[in-house]
Amino acid sequence: MNIAMIGSGFIAKVHSNAFRQVGHFFDLPYELQLKVICGRNRAKLEAAAAQWGWEEVEGDWRALVSRKDIDIIDIAVPNVLHAPIAIAAAQAGKILLCEKPLATSLKEAENMATAASNVPNLVWFNYRRVPAVAFAKQLIDEGRTGEPFHYRALYLNQSGNDASKASGWRYKRSEAGTGATGDLLSHSIDLALYLNGPITELTAMTHTFAPGRDVDDAALLLARFANGSIGSFEVSRYGVGCQNRNTFEINGSRGMLRFNLEDMNRLDFYDATEASSLQATRSLMVTGPNHPYWEVFWKPGHAIGYEHPFIATLGDFLRSMARNEKFHVNFEDAVEVQRVLDSLERSALSRNWVKVEKRPH
Amino acid sequence: MNIAMIGSGFIAKVHSNAFRQVGHFFDLPYELQLKVICGRNRAKLEAAAAQWGWEEVEGDWRALVSRKDIDIIDIAVPNVLHAPIAIAAAQAGKILLCEKPLATSLKEAENMATAASNVPNLVWFNYRRVPAVAFAKQLIDEGRTGEPFHYRALYLNQSGNDASKASGWRYKRSEAGTGATGDLLSHSIDLALYLNGPITELTAMTHTFAPGRDVDDAALLLARFANGSIGSFEVSRYGVGCQNRNTFEINGSRGMLRFNLEDMNRLDFYDATEASSLQATRSLMVTGPNHPYWEVFWKPGHAIGYEHPFIATLGDFLRSMARNEKFHVNFEDAVEVQRVLDSLERSALSRNWVKVEKRPH
Amino acid sequence: MNIAMIGSGFIAKVHSNAFRQVGHFFDLPYELQLKVICGRNRAKLEAAAAQWGWEEVEGDWRALVSRKDIDIIDIAVPNVLHAPIAIAAAQAGKILLCEKPLATSLKEAENMATAASNVPNLVWFNYRRVPAVAFAKQLIDEGRTGEPFHYRALYLNQSGNDASKASGWRYKRSEAGTGATGDLLSHSIDLALYLNGPITELTAMTHTFAPGRDVDDAALLLARFANGSIGSFEVSRYGVGCQNRNTFEINGSRGMLRFNLEDMNRLDFYDATEASSLQATRSLMVTGPNHPYWEVFWKPGHAIGYEHPFIATLGDFLRSMARNEKFHVNFEDAVEVQRVLDSLERSALSRNWVKVEKRPH
Amino acid sequence: MNIAMIGSGFIAKVHSNAFRQVGHFFDLPYELQLKVICGRNRAKLEAAAAQWGWEEVEGDWRALVSRKDIDIIDIAVPNVLHAPIAIAAAQAGKILLCEKPLATSLKEAENMATAASNVPNLVWFNYRRVPAVAFAKQLIDEGRTGEPFHYRALYLNQSGNDASKASGWRYKRSEAGTGATGDLLSHSIDLALYLNGPITELTAMTHTFAPGRDVDDAALLLARFANGSIGSFEVSRYGVGCQNRNTFEINGSRGMLRFNLEDMNRLDFYDATEASSLQATRSLMVTGPNHPYWEVFWKPGHAIGYEHPFIATLGDFLRSMARNEKFHVNFEDAVEVQRVLDSLERSALSRNWVKVEKRPH
Repeated sequence: MNIAMIGSGFIAKVHSNAFRQVGHFFDLPYELQLKVICGRNRAKLEAAAAQWGWEEVEGDWRALVSRKDIDIIDIAVPNVLHAPIAIAAAQAGKILLCEKPLATSLKEAENMATAASNVPNLVWFNYRRVPAVAFAKQLIDEGRTGEPFHYRALYLNQSGNDASKASGWRYKRSEAGTGATGDLLSHSIDLALYLNGPITELTAMTHTFAPGRDVDDAALLLARFANGSIGSFEVSRYGVGCQNRNTFEINGSRGMLRFNLEDMNRLDFYDATEASSLQATRSLMVTGPNHPYWEVFWKPGHAIGYEHPFIATLGDFLRSMARNEKFHVNFEDAVEVQRVLDSLERSALSRNWVKVEKRPH
Repeated sequence: MNIAMIGSGFIAKVHSNAFRQVGHFFDLPYELQLKVICGRNRAKLEAAAAQWGWEEVEGDWRALVSRKDIDIIDIAVPNVLHAPIAIAAAQAGKILLCEKPLATSLKEAENMATAASNVPNLVWFNYRRVPAVAFAKQLIDEGRTGEPFHYRALYLNQSGNDASKASGWRYKRSEAGTGATGDLLSHSIDLALYLNGPITELTAMTHTFAPGRDVDDAALLLARFANGSIGSFEVSRYGVGCQNRNTFEINGSRGMLRFNLEDMNRLDFYDATEASSLQATRSLMVTGPNHPYWEVFWKPGHAIGYEHPFIATLGDFLRSMARNEKFHVNFEDAVEVQRVLDSLERSALSRNWVKVEKRPH
Repeated sequence: MNIAMIGSGFIAKVHSNAFRQVGHFFDLPYELQLKVICGRNRAKLEAAAAQWGWEEVEGDWRALVSRKDIDIIDIAVPNVLHAPIAIAAAQAGKILLCEKPLATSLKEAENMATAASNVPNLVWFNYRRVPAVAFAKQLIDEGRTGEPFHYRALYLNQSGNDASKASGWRYKRSEAGTGATGDLLSHSIDLALYLNGPITELTAMTHTFAPGRDVDDAALLLARFANGSIGSFEVSRYGVGCQNRNTFEINGSRGMLRFNLEDMNRLDFYDATEASSLQATRSLMVTGPNHPYWEVFWKPGHAIGYEHPFIATLGDFLRSMARNEKFHVNFEDAVEVQRVLDSLERSALSRNWVKVEKRPH
Repeated sequence: MNIAMIGSGFIAKVHSNAFRQVGHFFDLPYELQLKVICGRNRAKLEAAAAQWGWEEVEGDWRALVSRKDIDIIDIAVPNVLHAPIAIAAAQAGKILLCEKPLATSLKEAENMATAASNVPNLVWFNYRRVPAVAFAKQLIDEGRTGEPFHYRALYLNQSGNDASKASGWRYKRSEAGTGATGDLLSHSIDLALYLNGPITELTAMTHTFAPGRDVDDAALLLARFANGSIGSFEVSRYGVGCQNRNTFEINGSRGMLRFNLEDMNRLDFYDATEASSLQATRSLMVTGPNHPYWEVFWKPGHAIGYEHPFIATLGDFLRSMARNEKFHVNFEDAVEVQRVLDSLERSALSRNWVKVEKRPH
């Protein structure tokens, strides 16, 4: 399988690492070739190619789409480019991997999903495969949290508070489409849909702190889920004191679960069915034994890092594909995330509760 | 000063303790006499009187209001009784202490504040005087958090999830007026107004999980503050895993502060003005030296407990009164809390944003 | 029961509080009268008497011993005075309460225990009655930790590193007898004997960091317990970063327990009998329900502070006395602590392992 | 540079990963070839070779030593084989990488260091290059901890308590030489020598809990350091509740540092030079900016895992070699670790304090 990666920034490095590492940890049904890396800056491209062993460099993504020897196209470029590349690549029959958020609008996302319906596809919502998160899902499915009452998520960093950092494409509507919403909230919503199911309605606000910036710096929303629970979400690039605080907490009739990406090898669990004197929040080290991916990476008690969930995502995808099974998170799943983001925008604008539902455009 | 306490439940025990202890820690301008305790259940009253040294017991609060030898009336009964007692006592010229929430409606609260305008008065919003909270206020006032971006508060317990606990007066509209809103959110709002100033508008939802219950079990709200920051609040009696999780967090341009009542002797502080490699959340033990009340209670490094902020509240009140200064939290302050709760109710009903402002009734 | 307190420093304040408060939380078989407080500094004494309601002041402890109207003598003075006062008071038939460490030498302690053998007596090793510690004892007794492997204790503060603090009687051999050993290690040893049983042998070192100081600033020891487990202890007044870090940890075949006085309402527990994927350290809030003293003080989820274990100690003592039962910690128990301290001194001097056993003097 | 790896167990996987990954993160002066992997079990070898891309497999390490095309020999086999392989390989002029502990005795270690004196050499004491540990070293060197008072280290896991795990070569004298001492304490001592300098004398005990086992399960020691501070060390395979608790804490006149491998991306720091009301333990996320290796791996706020310090060790070694600089940790450094372990054994046997010094054999 020959891979073409489009993009050469930070996330392209993370994907390159996943391509290089996946075969060391997973028994792969395919052999992966890092064929070509594509981007606009030749010097940067060549450095990235040399560092990660991409065989060729290329300046125009369109050239890749039409190449017969390319099997997989991985999209790791600013958000506004996701749709044109993905649609063209899908039409050319390429296997599609796309960085999140899938798109800059619901319509765009739906078009991408339609186009990609005939090819295997993946969206890099990597946090589902943090072992602690996957273990949370397992505990929920086993009924350990019981009837769901509350879902509560934060994704806070402080990037916006540092003028020197807040100048990249992520802070411009013309390249990113949105601000904290697409960058951070898309992750929180994906995890919520995964762990707690569909959202039926919401009310929201967005806010931009920086004068002159044309994307949102923060977004807050209140939600009702189809399972009867109620939720709150808050994301911000002005969460001073937080470096990468992506958290969720679930309170149910039988227990509580809590995760914080800043301590990604841990999961908090409270078992409300125990004797009252022993009920407490326990801090699980989700590094095995018997946790998701524990036999894939290191030994119990040995931490994994930021890149491992990407490796696990890729490993699972390749194995799904070999078994002809649908992989999640795919483009259709990501459309549902986008539908929530779209509802949020409408609510923030109208200052009303809105239903999260399929609507005619 | 002769005190009459109306009520004999848990909070009456906490107040009795404050009356007994305040003189051991504060140099008092007055001598306090625990004169009479009043309630409906004679046996329970006599036990409480014996335990805490109240001189007399009384069955009818009206009798106390007309007694000339009573200087202070302390109201520690279910919420619906606050207004009639407070108004009658104020008219009789008594010094007034009232448990929170002040009232069951904004109108009631305003009437109480009007009636009490000529007598010294206090509302037992005790958490302002947790040393860690008072120190947070001091750090904010010193500019340590800078320009405010976010205010975020939770007050979660799990009382509603336990059918055996959820049967008292706090779960009935006829006695409590509201549910988690008055019980928990009033505390969160008082702290927010204290630490972050007025709220200008909000949108909110309330929810009742228990079938047949006529008060709210949970309330969520999004808010804008007059100082330009944005806020989120969530309170619930279905916060399984949380025993008394009353938290706030403030993110500002220069720092972050975070408090959790479950670790009430600690305050988290992040100083964003330090060298980047040394920026981190520090866990302050706010037990001295040089913290609020550190010379009042024990030595540095020695924890205080739940009752000490009540003692500090009373000590500060008595000293304010002797100096003829206005004490906070007073009835007028509590009206502002009630105004936010009233706005919340209107928003939850209308499903719209509402302004928090003085309105004709 | 008329009480005479000898001493007027910090710990006398803590004891006074216990005398004042015990009847508010415990059903007492006796009525306590705070009769007389005794010390050398008249002005300080009178202030203390006024603050806590002692009826009389007295300059000479000998006068108290011979007074017929005194039932209880409470010793809250520098360590070197414990023995003469306790022995005289015991001979006069007084009920004896003595601050820790009981004595400045094993011989002194043995003499005190002999003298006190006919009177009810107590040593204020208050930390046994921190609810979290008492709950640890209960879990051990229930077999929750299984076969014991390790006992590990620290007691660290930073008082010695601050020249301004390190000038009181606690830093002088002529008044304190020893330094960190008597002040801090006595607490750690008492808890170890309580929770893990007798120590059979040990090797130790002591160290003085401050030039010219004639007591130890730090002590470290390795130990073997009669139950087959092995232990390590470290105490220091140069534990910079620690305000009152009195910790123990027990590792056994079925579980782990860990306590830190800096978070005194919590106890860490690891249950090694659970399914491996759910094994984790849980942070118990030992504030009820169903924890030691939970119905004595506040409601579940409400913290207690430094003074409550003193109140519980006194309450338990008075109830034991009324039932004619032996109370622990008594003078004989404290002799066993002193025996370990004596062994430590001999080991530190000889640089050898020493047996902890009864020896002819 | 052609590499031959001897060993195919867990640690060989970790080293293989480092060889594969080092060039992705470090600009390397050499090109590495994973030439041959050597071990006794053919099937296991071939699987490892396929997984990590070793070109050849080999059954006899002696054959590798005499091959001219091998530049680097990496020793990842049970401890008793380290010396014969290392000495033979050194005599053949190979660059040497050796897993820790270097040897099973001081004499063996010294012989290895002598043999290796003419070839570049490395011992895989990987924890020095955890960014948090390297940052601790930097803070110490900057004087942030001041005059050193205490060094305190634990390395606890619970492997010994699980009969199913405690059956490998690490639990047999004939293969491992020692038990927890070589396995765990060697790491703790290496970090202590790195961070706090030479140990001058010590007293120690070792203990075996499992009947019939011929290596130590636990070791405890008290130490004096050349810099005037005092230390305690405890390691155990019966530290139930601890999965990989490798900790150190340093208390000095100006500050405290504390690390726990179970939270390897964090470092606790207490700055005792701050205003007293702001002194607190801060939990640094040592993931950048401006922390060791922060530009090597991911972005600030993104965790690294267990394998990254191995990659950093290898990257630093290769760069040192290219610059003709001495690399640390080398065989001579590891001899100093072995000297402490040797002193420990002598002390545990003699039950006396022993000097840690060069002695005639």
